[in-house]
Amino acid sequence: MRSFSFFERVSRAFHDYPSLPKLIVIFTASGGGLVAYSDSKSYQGAKSVVGSSEADNKKKRVVVLGTGWAGTSFLKGLKNSSYDVQVVSPRNYFAFTPLLPSVTCGTVEPRSIVEPIRNIVRKKNVEIHFWEAECVKIDAKNNKVYCRPNLDTNLNGKEEFVVDYDYLVIAMGARVNTFNTPGVVENFVYFYMKMHYMQEVEDAQAIRRTVIDCFEKASLPTVSDEERKKMLHFVIVGGGPTGVEFSAELHDFVNEDLAKLYPTVKELVKITLFEAGDHILNMFDKRITTFAEKKFQREGIDLKTGSMVVKVSDKEISTKERSSGEIFSVPYGMVVWSTGIATRPVIMDFMKQIGQTNRRVLATDEWLRVEGLKNVYALGDCATINQRKVMEDISAIFSKADTDKSGTLTVKEFEEVIADICERYPQVELYLKNNRMSSIVDLMKQSNVDNTKESVELDIEGLKLAFSEVDSQMKNLPATAQVAAQQGTYLADCFNRMEECEKNPEGPIRFREEGRHRFRPFRYKHFGQFAPLGGEQTAAQLPGDWVSIGRSSQWLWYSVYASKLVSWRTRALVITDWTRRFIFGRDSSGI
Amino acid sequence: MRSFSFFERVSRAFHDYPSLPKLIVIFTASGGGLVAYSDSKSYQGAKSVVGSSEADNKKKRVVVLGTGWAGTSFLKGLKNSSYDVQVVSPRNYFAFTPLLPSVTCGTVEPRSIVEPIRNIVRKKNVEIHFWEAECVKIDAKNNKVYCRPNLDTNLNGKEEFVVDYDYLVIAMGARVNTFNTPGVVENFVYFYMKMHYMQEVEDAQAIRRTVIDCFEKASLPTVSDEERKKMLHFVIVGGGPTGVEFSAELHDFVNEDLAKLYPTVKELVKITLFEAGDHILNMFDKRITTFAEKKFQREGIDLKTGSMVVKVSDKEISTKERSSGEIFSVPYGMVVWSTGIATRPVIMDFMKQIGQTNRRVLATDEWLRVEGLKNVYALGDCATINQRKVMEDISAIFSKADTDKSGTLTVKEFEEVIADICERYPQVELYLKNNRMSSIVDLMKQSNVDNTKESVELDIEGLKLAFSEVDSQMKNLPATAQVAAQQGTYLADCFNRMEECEKNPEGPIRFREEGRHRFRPFRYKHFGQFAPLGGEQTAAQLPGDWVSIGRSSQWLWYSVYASKLVSWRTRALVITDWTRRFIFGRDSSGI
Repeated sequence: MRSFSFFERVSRAFHDYPSLPKLIVIFTASGGGLVAYSDSKSYQGAKSVVGSSEADNKKKRVVVLGTGWAGTSFLKGLKNSSYDVQVVSPRNYFAFTPLLPSVTCGTVEPRSIVEPIRNIVRKKNVEIHFWEAECVKIDAKNNKVYCRPNLDTNLNGKEEFVVDYDYLVIAMGARVNTFNTPGVVENFVYFYMKMHYMQEVEDAQAIRRTVIDCFEKASLPTVSDEERKKMLHFVIVGGGPTGVEFSAELHDFVNEDLAKLYPTVKELVKITLFEAGDHILNMFDKRITTFAEKKFQREGIDLKTGSMVVKVSDKEISTKERSSGEIFSVPYGMVVWSTGIATRPVIMDFMKQIGQTNRRVLATDEWLRVEGLKNVYALGDCATINQRKVMEDISAIFSKADTDKSGTLTVKEFEEVIADICERYPQVELYLKNNRMSSIVDLMKQSNVDNTKESVELDIEGLKLAFSEVDSQMKNLPATAQVAAQQGTYLADCFNRMEECEKNPEGPIRFREEGRHRFRPFRYKHFGQFAPLGGEQTAAQLPGDWVSIGRSSQWLWYSVYASKLVSWRTRALVITDWTRRFIFGRDSSGI
Repeated sequence: MRSFSFFERVSRAFHDYPSLPKLIVIFTASGGGLVAYSDSKSYQGAKSVVGSSEADNKKKRVVVLGTGWAGTSFLKGLKNSSYDVQVVSPRNYFAFTPLLPSVTCGTVEPRSIVEPIRNIVRKKNVEIHFWEAECVKIDAKNNKVYCRPNLDTNLNGKEEFVVDYDYLVIAMGARVNTFNTPGVVENFVYFYMKMHYMQEVEDAQAIRRTVIDCFEKASLPTVSDEERKKMLHFVIVGGGPTGVEFSAELHDFVNEDLAKLYPTVKELVKITLFEAGDHILNMFDKRITTFAEKKFQREGIDLKTGSMVVKVSDKEISTKERSSGEIFSVPYGMVVWSTGIATRPVIMDFMKQIGQTNRRVLATDEWLRVEGLKNVYALGDCATINQRKVMEDISAIFSKADTDKSGTLTVKEFEEVIADICERYPQVELYLKNNRMSSIVDLMKQSNVDNTKESVELDIEGLKLAFSEVDSQMKNLPATAQVAAQQGTYLADCFNRMEECEKNPEGPIRFREEGRHRFRPFRYKHFGQFAPLGGEQTAAQLPGDWVSIGRSSQWLWYSVYASKLVSWRTRALVITDWTRRFIFGRDSSGI
C-alpha cells in the first residue's frame, strides 16, 4: 500500500520526469486557445429538421447508423455540403472507449470521455441531422431504414419511423460474445465488452458502483468472514487488453484507495483473471505477455490461463481446465465479462436479406462497400473486409497485362501493371516484403523453371505458380478502435471527392472490367497498441517491433490518449481528471 | 441567446471583476497545500470493526443515524476518543446539497459535491464505524436500533441487524411532502426535494437525463409540433429557493447550451413555475422577491403564483387558482417537485412509541434531546426544538428569584437571575430587543401598575403580566442546511465535554430543580441566505437586512460555497467544474 503526500508525489514526479508536468500545462493551455477558435466559428446551416429531405430533392441522402469510432470519424471527416446526412444512434454521444477501464475505477469521470454528437455535428457546413433511435431493420431493396426511438417519455409509446437513403453507412458495432455460456445473460454479470462500444459508459458506471457495494456489504457487522471473502472475490473473464487493464486498475483502486477506507476487509480481496488461451495479451509481443504475467503474479492477481468459463450461476462461476478437463466452481462477488465480439441481430437479419447466409460477419469489399450492394457501406466492428484473392482473378490479370497478346508476360509488361496489382491485392506487396524480394523480377524468376534464360518471361501457368503462395498472406483486420477510426476517415474522404473521382478515377485498374476503380482501396496503418498494466506502468508495442514497458510508456500513453481525444473539451476534462486523481486519489462514494 | 468565445468571456470577466479570476487561482492553490497537510496525517485507530463494541466495554456506544448536514457536522466535530461511534446511513457519502440544482443542468459534476463518509471519518482519532444500511426501527425502551442493508448483492438477501447504543443521535432528515396530491407518487414525476437531502444526488442525475431525453424525443422526425410543445414543457412545483434556482438554471441551460444543439426546437421550450402562495421566495426580503419575479417575466419563465397543484396524471398537471377556484390542466414533459418536507415513517413510528402522538414533527428540548428520553438526541430536519414557554415555569422562576422569600421581586433580585432567564428562554431577550427595552427595569416598569413608586417591585401576578407577551416571540427554526450543520457542531461540542460539564455545569439555572443545566442550550446564528437567479445573478440576504442582487452576489455565492464545501478535495473539484463550464459550456450528452 503506497500513500504519498501531495508534495512527495509532485517532487517524485519532477525528479523522475522533469519535463512532463509542464506537458500537462501546455496541453491545457493550448486546449483553451483552440476551443476559442472552434467556438468562434458561427453556426451555419440551421434549418427546419423535419421535411428537410423534401426541400432538398437534389441532395443525396446519406444515412449513418451508429456513433461509435467508425460513424463519428466518418461524420467528422465529411466536408462535402452536397449531402443531406441523417444519423441514427441510440446514444446521443460519442464515447472515447479506450479510457472506459479508467472510468470503472473512478480515475476518469464518465462525462469527460464523452462528446455529444450534436456538438461534433453542428460545427460543420454539411447538413447533418441526428435522431436518437435504434435501427431495427434495414430494407436494402427499398433503400429504407426502420428506426425506433429508445426514449420512453410519458407522452406516447415507442413509435417507429422510416428513413430513406441514397447511401447507407452501417457503423453499428457489435455485441458482446458470450459464447452461449449458460447463465451469463441471466445472472448478475455486468457486460464489459470490448473497448469500442458506446453503451459501455453506463456499464462502466455500473461496475464502479458494484465494486463499492461489495466493499460496503462486506463491512457490515453481521457478515461472516467466509461470506466476506465471497463478496470480495472479483472475477474477470478474458485476458485481452481490456480485461488486463481492468484487472490492473481494480488492483490499484483496491490497494491505493479502498485499503485506507476499508482497513478491516482489505486482506480478503481477491482478483482472478480467467483466460481460455495459454497466455494473456496474446496479440502482443511475448516480452509484454511475460512481463504482464509476472507483474500480476507478484501483485497477487490470480491468473488462470487455459481456463474456459462454462457456466455462471447467481453465486458461482464454473471453469473447465483445458489441459485436464476438470471443472472447478468458485463463488464470486462480481464478474466482469470481456471476451470477444459477435454480430448484432439486426445485421444478421440484413445478411440473410442480401444472401450472405454462410458468413458470421458482414462482408465488404476493399472499398468498404457491402458485397452485392452498390450504395451500402459497412465499417468498424460490424463488418470485415473480404480481401479479394489474386488467384480468383489470375486469368483476367494475365490478359490485362499481356498487352501484345503474345501469350507470355515480359518483365516490361509485368512492370507496367505491378503497381496496380499491389494496390488491388495488398497481399502481393506483403508477400514480396516478407520474402525479401526487391522487385517483381525476383518473383518471376522464382517461378521460371529455366533460370538460365536471359529474358524472363511467364505464361499463364507460370504466373499462377508465381502467385500461388501470395494469398496466404491475407489476414483480417483486428476489431479495434484504430481500424474503425481509419475506415471512417477513409470513407468520408471518398464521399467528399465522389464526383471528382467519378470523372478522374484514381484507383487501380479493374482487371475484370474496363477502366479504373474510382478510389484507392482502404489500407490500414497500424500505429501500435498500449496495454496499461497498473502501478503507473504501461506496455507499448509500436510498429517495427518496438516494445517498451514501464513508466515512460505510461507517460507516452497519457500523451497519445490526450492528443487522440475527440475534442479539446474532452481533452482538457480528461487531463484535469488525471490531475485530480494524482492529487486526491480516486473517489469511493457510491455515486 | 448569448454565445461568447473563450477570449471574449475571459476579457469581459477581467474587465468587470479584475480581482476575481485571481481568487479562483488562490483557492485552487491553497486547496492543494492543505490537502497535503491532511493527507500526511497518518491513519490511526484501525482495528477490527466487528466485535469492537465487545472489546471496549467501558466506552460509551454512540449510534448516529444519517450522514446529511446534521450527522456529518456531528461526526466532524466529535473529538473525544472515549466514545465508540457507529454510523448507520443508506448512503456512504455526504452530499453538499446546496449545489444540487447545479448538478441537474451539468454545471457541476455529481461526484464533485459528494465526499465519502469513510474519508471524513478515518482522519479522526475517535473510533468510528460506518454501516451502509437503513434504520428501520428505533427501540428506545431497549436502547436498540434495527437496521437493514440497502445493498442487494448476489450472495444473500437483505439481512437485518441490531445495533445497541448508550446514546442515539437521530439525524435522518425528512422526506418530501407531496401534500397527498393524487398522482404525484405514481407518475413520471421526479422528486426534487428540499436542498438538504442526500438521496437527491441520484434524483438530480435523473432530472438531467430527462431534460436531454425530452429534447432528443422532440427532435425526432415523426413528432408533431403539438407534441413537441408538450414534451418541452418543463414544470416546477414550489417557488422556494430550490425551485427558483432550478428554474433559473434550466432556463440558462436551455438558452446558453441546448439552443445551439437543438436549433429547430428551441422556440418550443416553455418553463412554468407553480407556487401556491402569492409570491416566490417568500422567506426572502420583498426586494429580492420583486427582482426575481421581474427577471423571470422578462426571460419568459411562466410564473403562476396562487396556483395549487391538485392532481398529476401521466400526461397532465392540474392546478387550482386560489383566487377563483378554477381548475386548469396542462400537458407536461417533466415535472420537478420542490415543495415542503414531511416526517419519515420510521420517525412517526418512534414518536408513537414515546408518546409524541399529537405532533407532526419529533420534538426535542433546547439541548436537542428528544422530549421524554435521556439518551436520545435528534437534530436537523427530522426534529424541531420545542422551546419552553416562560409562562409554564413562571411560579418556579418567581420562587427561585425571590431569594428572601418576601413574596415580591426587587430589581436587584431580578437582575441576579435575568441572565439565566434570557439563556433558558431566548424569547425574553428577543422581546426586550424588539420592544427596545434596554434593561429588565423597563420590563418591570411596564407591568407595574403604580409607576410613581421609587423602588420597582413585582409580585407573582406582576411577573406574569410582565412576561405575558414574551412567549409570542417564539418561532421554529427553518429546515435548512445551516441550522442542521450548526446543531451537529453544537452537539459534538457537548459530547466532547460531557464529563467536564457533568462536574462543572455551564448552563443556566434549573428553575424547577436544583443546580444548573450541564450545557448552554443550542442557539442558532443566521448567516444569511442565497438565491441564485440565473444569468450570473444571485440574490443574497445577509443578517441586518443587507440585501444584494447581481453579479457581485454571484461571486460572493461562489466564494462562500467554495469555502463551505466539506473538504479540500470537493472544493477543488467544484472550482474546476465551474472553470470547465465557464470555458466549455455545459455538457449535453445523455450520461
